[in-house]
Amino acid sequence: MRRAIELALSAKGRTNPNPMVGAVIVKDGRVIGEGYHHRYGDLHAERDAIRHLKESAQGGTIYVTLEPCCHYGKQPPCTLAIVEAGIERVVIGSRDPNPLVGGKGTAFLREHGIEVVEDYLKDECDAINPVFFHYITGKEPYVALKYAMTADGRIATDFGDSKWITGESARAYVHELRNYYTGILVGIGTVLADDPMLTCRLPGTRNPIRIVMDSHLKIPLDCNLVKTVNEAPLIVACLDKYLHDGADDLEYSDAIRKKISALKSMGVTVLGVASNGEVRRGQDDLTDASKNRHVDEGEHISVDDLLRQLGLLHIDGILVEGGKHINAAFLEAGKVNKIYTFVGAQIVGGIGIYTPVADIGITKMKESIRLSDPEIRAFDTDVLIEYEVQRSK
Amino acid sequence: MRRAIELALSAKGRTNPNPMVGAVIVKDGRVIGEGYHHRYGDLHAERDAIRHLKESAQGGTIYVTLEPCCHYGKQPPCTLAIVEAGIERVVIGSRDPNPLVGGKGTAFLREHGIEVVEDYLKDECDAINPVFFHYITGKEPYVALKYAMTADGRIATDFGDSKWITGESARAYVHELRNYYTGILVGIGTVLADDPMLTCRLPGTRNPIRIVMDSHLKIPLDCNLVKTVNEAPLIVACLDKYLHDGADDLEYSDAIRKKISALKSMGVTVLGVASNGEVRRGQDDLTDASKNRHVDEGEHISVDDLLRQLGLLHIDGILVEGGKHINAAFLEAGKVNKIYTFVGAQIVGGIGIYTPVADIGITKMKESIRLSDPEIRAFDTDVLIEYEVQRSK
Repeated sequence: MRRAIELALSAKGRTNPNPMVGAVIVKDGRVIGEGYHHRYGDLHAERDAIRHLKESAQGGTIYVTLEPCCHYGKQPPCTLAIVEAGIERVVIGSRDPNPLVGGKGTAFLREHGIEVVEDYLKDECDAINPVFFHYITGKEPYVALKYAMTADGRIATDFGDSKWITGESARAYVHELRNYYTGILVGIGTVLADDPMLTCRLPGTRNPIRIVMDSHLKIPLDCNLVKTVNEAPLIVACLDKYLHDGADDLEYSDAIRKKISALKSMGVTVLGVASNGEVRRGQDDLTDASKNRHVDEGEHISVDDLLRQLGLLHIDGILVEGGKHINAAFLEAGKVNKIYTFVGAQIVGGIGIYTPVADIGITKMKESIRLSDPEIRAFDTDVLIEYEVQRSK
Repeated sequence: MRRAIELALSAKGRTNPNPMVGAVIVKDGRVIGEGYHHRYGDLHAERDAIRHLKESAQGGTIYVTLEPCCHYGKQPPCTLAIVEAGIERVVIGSRDPNPLVGGKGTAFLREHGIEVVEDYLKDECDAINPVFFHYITGKEPYVALKYAMTADGRIATDFGDSKWITGESARAYVHELRNYYTGILVGIGTVLADDPMLTCRLPGTRNPIRIVMDSHLKIPLDCNLVKTVNEAPLIVACLDKYLHDGADDLEYSDAIRKKISALKSMGVTVLGVASNGEVRRGQDDLTDASKNRHVDEGEHISVDDLLRQLGLLHIDGILVEGGKHINAAFLEAGKVNKIYTFVGAQIVGGIGIYTPVADIGITKMKESIRLSDPEIRAFDTDVLIEYEVQRSK
């Protein structure tokens, strides 16, 4: 099974929205076939392993990291291939969370007299596809925040300079992450300040779908994101009122209307998202202390509605590379699954204008958002701590 | 030599202000004697190894992590013991930075016909005693900053709550650090807010000398630090003007004078330290931008003068457990050698009132204080990154 996990992971970033899966066929203590799901649309792992058999699998055992499917999708069901190959025993890591498959694969196999072992190295197998498991169950993208801070917790100096906190090898790893997640999201502030491309600069990789949270459509038509819309898709998410017909009589209407047409004609997807205004006004149960906290000025798009709509667009996971307000919005909505904290090897000090997360109404340590399972990597003098979000607000 | 390094390190925290040293005697490919400097005042490593010889060292080789001494201190010179034992070859890790010894030990050995090899595993051997090397060359304590921050860079919530950022095992390690450094330093703010003991709660260890930076003598006579002065020494460092005879005519004189007498009568050392006022006024070369930065209100003691005086008191190293202003003062003075950054597994957000380092006048990333050689340890879900300070301001 460990070999099957290895095989599964070798397709990192290429199978979305399908999961990564690996399979190994064993007979008389020898490996006689190996396979994995190479990329979206290709053969499933079980069929790939069967295709690579060195001898007949009759009477053999297949180890597969995920429950075999038994429905016709882009590929015929794997359960059928297993039965046809004469395999006698199937050892499964993760059960399939997909309601189209869940439990049906094992039932089909058992009906055909095949011995099935489930939950073998389950945790390791589940860990291969956190994004897939999250998306398939809730139809919303898995959300990972990424930020780089100095050893004293700043994402920039008080004067806004952030180039560079981390070195080249850490920044190269960020490009690997961009290859792994289907979407990458930034705030309009980042676009206006840095004019980024947000493409993935690694050879042989695909570009993520780029998403900008831009409540009031401030994005310049000549920014790099818009200019490169033919290299990688671009979604601009704004308040849905700007897309309504009834907006004619409003002051902003003409300029906004022209910008929306221009963006659309250039190939940009303009996504109208509900306002978070209702949510803010509904917070009557705040303590006096938390009432004093800073609230963003103006009306912003709702994280909940944005994620719901990105889910409808089949975006199964996003990497959020925002500043403190974007990070706070996702955390406050309770929608963050993972956090990548890069710690650079320098001290800048300051009064603390640029920190990773703006106010989210926490007054006591025991109310904090708890993180778990830190995984640590070193990149030269930089340190990356990868966390799972254990308890949201 | 690796075994000698191991032996040296087994005395951690007990040899100050002497260095930790280990020695191994080898003959015909066999180890025939091992030793180390157990605690301040005890036998040096070489004599300890000779004392533990299982057979004659005649014709043997001694591996020693630090150049043997050849002067009479608390112990007779080790070079003499080596000659008397009939050892033919001496392999040395670090050269002794002590001006009383430097090079004299090797010269003496060579004059007596002994072969000497220097700089063997030098870096590893130097790393055993960073505090000793620093103190012996500059007569000022080695300075280590320690702080614990959340994964989003806060040392407390905006409301000042900091209990707890790290878990029990990380906090236990802090007690090991308190055992390692001769002194522990905090600001008066920490005393007033937390009323700490700052003792080392590990069994079989000694307490550090406790030092409070308290420019204006605000320390309460009934605080825990003062109450426990008989368990561990306490130094209160204030502006030296308060100790001058000429202070009679000043408004504060009477209350301050009584407090100083009371502190002294209880056994507290009150240390008068020069003001940093001159330093601040001398910064005429600041850019316009950095002129806008926050400056602490009032007059404070000079870090330079404080360290000079602590050096005179034979304090070879201090662990600074301060807040952002204390940390900034030491960093701004360019006096920090090491930083222990604990990263807790939680997010608190906020406008950023409590961060690890206050303003130190840095506007651009490239001007930042560079850290190097991060060493990473995990304590349950907490991460400790230990840095050397590579380039000060």
